[in-house]
Amino acid sequence: MADRGRFITFEGTEGVGKSTQLQRAARALSDLGLEVEITREPGGTPMAEKIRELLLAPREEPVSDITELLLMFAARAQHLRNRILPALEQGRWVLCDRFTDATFAYQGGGRGVPPEQIEILETLVQGDVRPDHVILLDAPVETGMARAKKRGELDRFEQETLAFFQRIRETYLERATANPGQYHVVNAELPLDQVSESVTALLIAIARMPSTA
Amino acid sequence: MADRGRFITFEGTEGVGKSTQLQRAARALSDLGLEVEITREPGGTPMAEKIRELLLAPREEPVSDITELLLMFAARAQHLRNRILPALEQGRWVLCDRFTDATFAYQGGGRGVPPEQIEILETLVQGDVRPDHVILLDAPVETGMARAKKRGELDRFEQETLAFFQRIRETYLERATANPGQYHVVNAELPLDQVSESVTALLIAIARMPSTA
Repeated sequence: MADRGRFITFEGTEGVGKSTQLQRAARALSDLGLEVEITREPGGTPMAEKIRELLLAPREEPVSDITELLLMFAARAQHLRNRILPALEQGRWVLCDRFTDATFAYQGGGRGVPPEQIEILETLVQGDVRPDHVILLDAPVETGMARAKKRGELDRFEQETLAFFQRIRETYLERATANPGQYHVVNAELPLDQVSESVTALLIAIARMPSTA
Repeated sequence: MADRGRFITFEGTEGVGKSTQLQRAARALSDLGLEVEITREPGGTPMAEKIRELLLAPREEPVSDITELLLMFAARAQHLRNRILPALEQGRWVLCDRFTDATFAYQGGGRGVPPEQIEILETLVQGDVRPDHVILLDAPVETGMARAKKRGELDRFEQETLAFFQRIRETYLERATANPGQYHVVNAELPLDQVSESVTALLIAIARMPSTA
């Protein structure tokens, strides 16, 4: 039987280059002969992608913080059971664009949902499943937002204020400080190629570590 | 300022006549000069109705019990904040086709989700808001299913087995026994007009009780 794959998540505020870095990282890992699966949250399965649409669409009806939180975890429950866990069990590495750390950052830090409420749902949905490693692409919020705006129409989150994203960045950095073994903070203000080099070096080091599972 | 309205929910398994009885009850209350709002779960607001569509559509991807549970409460959070509570505060009576008792019956009794998990979400989403009265239309499962099948194509829940609906009925009856002041069990096997008479008599009695709020 194949070794269990590693579960690596990419986190950060808008426009820090998560998707690009994730694609490049996947190529680097494939070059090492590893099987890699790329996915994202919210989403990753047909039903979870439907929930993503509900979450991101700008709408007139006010969306309560708790609704947003429950939808995030509803999508996550599908994603985890129907895609992430089966892939890991088959020995594939899963690179995921955002996961529960994003919920602590966006719904917790951003919206002000108490972290204890998020932890309750984390346990309910994930049991003791956590990412093996979190790669936090960190850059000043202004830099990222300028990039995100260039991409065109803004979704319900991208329409938020600078202060909202400042709180998100701070929450990510606090979580990184609290979990130094799991979190890897990468300076995403550097040129794209330099960031990729750091991320690739990190992943190669991780690939050489013995699996903890 | 108007008195707070009453929050009355109609519960029961498939095909017991909830919608018909709810419509008739609303007419009877309007005839008493009360302002009445009719709504349903999952649903009741534009976003909650979108979540309802996600929940009811038959789909190939297996839906985890916890996803179903979180989607139910996500819809409920919208419904409660954006429709039910504002209506009650303005003095309107809210008659709702299913509410959290249905979650205990369907996701708890039917699917086997531990009631403690449902209670955690109930508190998270509702605080201490509970229906003032629950009208449980009770009939043998076979009777109701035969009626539901006549209505045409079955949704994801209606496709379930007889045993699933038996467990739901039992859970409803257990909750009624445990909460005799809140639950009113009506025999829904009787002819439609006789059921309406019982429900109307009940609601008139409720309207004469002093509001507890």
